[in-house]
Amino acid sequence: MRYRKKIGAKEKLTTYNDIFIQKYKNYKGKWKNLFQNSNHIHLEIGCGRGKFITTLAQNNPHINYIAIEKLDGILLDCAKKIEEKDIKNIKIICADASELEEIFDHKELQRIYINFCDPWPKKRHSKRRLTYKGFLEIYTNLMSEDGEIHFKTDNKDLFEFSINECCDFGLRLKNIYLDLHKNEEISRNVVTTEYEEKFKGMGMNIYKLEAYSWNNNI
Amino acid sequence: MRYRKKIGAKEKLTTYNDIFIQKYKNYKGKWKNLFQNSNHIHLEIGCGRGKFITTLAQNNPHINYIAIEKLDGILLDCAKKIEEKDIKNIKIICADASELEEIFDHKELQRIYINFCDPWPKKRHSKRRLTYKGFLEIYTNLMSEDGEIHFKTDNKDLFEFSINECCDFGLRLKNIYLDLHKNEEISRNVVTTEYEEKFKGMGMNIYKLEAYSWNNNI
Ligand SMILES: C[S@@+](CC[C@H](N)C(=O)[O-])C[C@H]1O[C@@H](n2cnc3c(N)ncnc32)[C@H](O)[C@@H]1O
Ligand SMILES: C[S@@+](CC[C@H](N)C(=O)[O-])C[C@H]1O[C@@H](n2cnc3c(N)ncnc32)[C@H](O)[C@@H]1O
Repeated sequence: MRYRKKIGAKEKLTTYNDIFIQKYKNYKGKWKNLFQNSNHIHLEIGCGRGKFITTLAQNNPHINYIAIEKLDGILLDCAKKIEEKDIKNIKIICADASELEEIFDHKELQRIYINFCDPWPKKRHSKRRLTYKGFLEIYTNLMSEDGEIHFKTDNKDLFEFSINECCDFGLRLKNIYLDLHKNEEISRNVVTTEYEEKFKGMGMNIYKLEAYSWNNNI
Repeated sequence: MRYRKKIGAKEKLTTYNDIFIQKYKNYKGKWKNLFQNSNHIHLEIGCGRGKFITTLAQNNPHINYIAIEKLDGILLDCAKKIEEKDIKNIKIICADASELEEIFDHKELQRIYINFCDPWPKKRHSKRRLTYKGFLEIYTNLMSEDGEIHFKTDNKDLFEFSINECCDFGLRLKNIYLDLHKNEEISRNVVTTEYEEKFKGMGMNIYKLEAYSWNNNI
């Protein structure tokens, strides 16, 4: 994401008391308490400016959302959006995906969204891709048995990698799209991200898959 | 496939005694006898002029190959190729894929190849696509438990349909490619079909997947 470092973003974030969770590791296994209900928790990794997750949260008041983003300046825009729209069912965290196991407990989540994550095109960087099998293992561990990973990207090579990685890891797939916005009727109902809007506008293919554990269905 | 009806193709085919199997339904459950060995049997559906299957057969003398093609004039070219190259481990059949259950017995096959089959783009024709779930059910029934379906196409929509159909039917996937010939090293080792050579030459993406039964791996 193009990003000019915002001076003092971290400090400004801390003013969003109810939204921005500074000591996120304290809530491992206790996120339900923070939300003060036992609704399902859906996580987005790399939420950017939050268009996607704020829309979802408004559409689904009975789901709790948590968004992780490593860049504070970008997350600040997300915080503003949540406050402006007065959304109560989102918490945001400034952290790296590599910390997930310190933030969430086994089976604490029901769904994970990954949208337009960095492709890390070089083979030697493949372990950094958020759909690398090491990450898939963490995700499945942090989700309940009926958990699902929802993944979107504009990057064909990353999608090819991801679909193979999911299959090889033993996840089942459903709702696979090689051109998500091809069909107008489907497209109209898609909750898009900032990047997706941009790529869609350029007429690029958007790829999508949903991955879930086989155990869930036998 | 562009095809001018060849007068007398069927009669000419019958002169290829050892290659062309006229009374193919007689061999249901008995194909091993015809090959006079107990090697695995791999089937290609819609073999066209036979570039793919003849190459495979030459590379893998310990596999028996059967090719099905519904158009006799095209199959005649395939017969000629087999005779010219003096290949002993292929039999060919002029039949429609809809007859498969009358031709093969439960677990008689070990692999099925489907290459560049007709896309049947209209939704109301989707049951005719060779990766429609009705066909997948027949294929898995005719293959042994370690059987595999290998599918290639140039058609994005057909590939999207096929990958979902396989997943929804409960098959596992591996070796998925959204651009099979992107990587030169991989491309060099691919056994291509006539259509594939043409599309590859035009710089088009070739899609590939391999599907297998989950039971095989637990
Ligand atoms: C290409 S942007 C996409 C943003 C948004 N998801 C969208 O689709 O519009 C990727 C975002 O993920 C964040 N990101 C990348 N790697 C991350 C990681 N390992 N942990 C947390 N966030 C990450 C980046 O800072 C960036 O904001
Ligand atoms: C587009 S061509 C591809 C030929 C070859 N596989 C290749 O890749 O070069 C499709 C072939 O499948 C045959 N075919 C289509 N539907 C079939 C069916 N239901 N049963 C048998 N053959 C079929 C056609 O006659 C045609 O030769």
